[in-house]
Amino acid sequence: MSVTVLLDELKRVVEPALRASVEAIADEQMRLIAGYQLGWNDEFGNATDAGGKAIRPALAVLSAQAVTGSPDAGIAPAVAVELVHNFSLLHDDVMDRDIERRHRKTGWVAFGEAQAILAGNAMLVRAVEVLLETGEAGARSLPALLDATQILISGQSRDLLLEGRSSVEVDEVVEMEAGKTAALLACSSSIGALAAGADPATVAALYTYGHELGIAFQLVDDILGVVGDPRRTGKSSSSDVRAGKRSAPIVAALTSGTAAGDRLTELLKDGPPTTEQDVALATELIRDSGGLEWAGAQADARLAKALAAIAVLSLTDPAAAQLAAIADFIVNRDR
Amino acid sequence: MSVTVLLDELKRVVEPALRASVEAIADEQMRLIAGYQLGWNDEFGNATDAGGKAIRPALAVLSAQAVTGSPDAGIAPAVAVELVHNFSLLHDDVMDRDIERRHRKTGWVAFGEAQAILAGNAMLVRAVEVLLETGEAGARSLPALLDATQILISGQSRDLLLEGRSSVEVDEVVEMEAGKTAALLACSSSIGALAAGADPATVAALYTYGHELGIAFQLVDDILGVVGDPRRTGKSSSSDVRAGKRSAPIVAALTSGTAAGDRLTELLKDGPPTTEQDVALATELIRDSGGLEWAGAQADARLAKALAAIAVLSLTDPAAAQLAAIADFIVNRDR
Repeated sequence: MSVTVLLDELKRVVEPALRASVEAIADEQMRLIAGYQLGWNDEFGNATDAGGKAIRPALAVLSAQAVTGSPDAGIAPAVAVELVHNFSLLHDDVMDRDIERRHRKTGWVAFGEAQAILAGNAMLVRAVEVLLETGEAGARSLPALLDATQILISGQSRDLLLEGRSSVEVDEVVEMEAGKTAALLACSSSIGALAAGADPATVAALYTYGHELGIAFQLVDDILGVVGDPRRTGKSSSSDVRAGKRSAPIVAALTSGTAAGDRLTELLKDGPPTTEQDVALATELIRDSGGLEWAGAQADARLAKALAAIAVLSLTDPAAAQLAAIADFIVNRDR
Repeated sequence: MSVTVLLDELKRVVEPALRASVEAIADEQMRLIAGYQLGWNDEFGNATDAGGKAIRPALAVLSAQAVTGSPDAGIAPAVAVELVHNFSLLHDDVMDRDIERRHRKTGWVAFGEAQAILAGNAMLVRAVEVLLETGEAGARSLPALLDATQILISGQSRDLLLEGRSSVEVDEVVEMEAGKTAALLACSSSIGALAAGADPATVAALYTYGHELGIAFQLVDDILGVVGDPRRTGKSSSSDVRAGKRSAPIVAALTSGTAAGDRLTELLKDGPPTTEQDVALATELIRDSGGLEWAGAQADARLAKALAAIAVLSLTDPAAAQLAAIADFIVNRDR
């Protein structure tokens, strides 16, 4: 089974519970925006089908299945991580002024900033409620979800603070990106097992798998932000270069100490490149200074660590093999 | 003991736990903003003493004391409701573009919109964590906190949606204001008892006390927004009239069917009054149409209901008498 088909299947396993969780939000407007954010309806409430790949809930379900043989204990945790993920997307889009997501207007563009922030809050609170409603399993897994959410919030805060700084180190960027991406993926990859009552060593190994996978995932995203094919990424070519983003490969290039890195520093010193020629030159310099190669090698190393973390566990198949396949799929997409 | 002294004392009971809860936020920037919002430090981290009256934590502590004779079971709930209250203040100030609170810049003015939103999120998540850390008592009281938070979010959403509408009914305004103020006061007034394991009837009566008190509190706020003494409210005279706010007494005036109400509708049809003469005229018409009298009578009736709800319980003194004294203080301040 291809990973795309697998992800579709796992999405169908979680979807009824995810829909029920949103339907339980009492406020009509908050429900409307949550449904829009999740791709289920347009801004007037008409049904649509515009959801994403739902990787986080897939991992949550598989992490339960890998330790118990059944997805059941992972379903509420899957709903909770997807709600937290979408809470952060709704808020981050406001803060980052992003106007498009999955070929649609972002939440704040469709509903206004305030309503988008409020709907994010409602989804966050709902995530906590969903876990609590499962009793003991929920109480056991809720602290992990809250931890991940605090790290996610902190990662976004540091991302915005780094944007305002003139010089940034690669380690700071990787740590910030770990907060923004790896924390919730680590939580997603272990929370189902945690809810199912798995032993701490297994939960910790699954957490490591998700954490390393998350960093690899972000590094690949960063590479695609420099050299991704617009037809596959749905973004403009060199989108991060145009936006003046200080992603890990770009900072690696800037701080490489190479001639190309120094030329890049000079080129970007007054802000993002404004002509097509300069965009192409900056992209070329990021490549020449080894920034992309470094990020690719890092992503591969992180993927290897992720796979190694779960290889030593005695997990049940096919879930164990599927966790490995998803990791490979995420890191090797479009490269 | 005067109510002001009592509130100060209760604040001191809760403060160490509240400070510890904020210190446990790992992110330095989030901690800084939380401390600013709570009045403990300026935007550079220097210690200040600019906190508010902390009515919600006082009620939470008293609700535990009233059923057990000790404040202890109410302390974590008190911290949690104060964190949720400040989460909502941080976010609402962004949405309402309010630039000053307690004679200081609001959080978003001091730290930027994005950081203020993120710090609000961190305080909300921390509130959940604080309750969970108390084990069974926390698990018992957390659903009540989450319920109140959802209603709070919904109230703010409806407030903003009502602003954009040309005609509004008094009932809609009172319901919206109940969401914005009464839900968290109701939660605060009962959550300590809930955590302490009080019987459902007692918890429900304390909830009713807080809910009615919350509506009365808001109605008094609305009256002061029309005719409050600037020296006591710290706001300009007729501040709600100037801001074009559709508070309960103003909507009651507009929909009164009186000649004064109709003149008011005509006066405000193109927006808030712009001259001092028109501000004075609008204020006069709100009074003449009975809007203020209606709100005052409503506030008195709600206060009576609040007091009646707890009068029938067998609560321990002095907490029971103090709950009554606080209600009277809140509703009869500055009138």
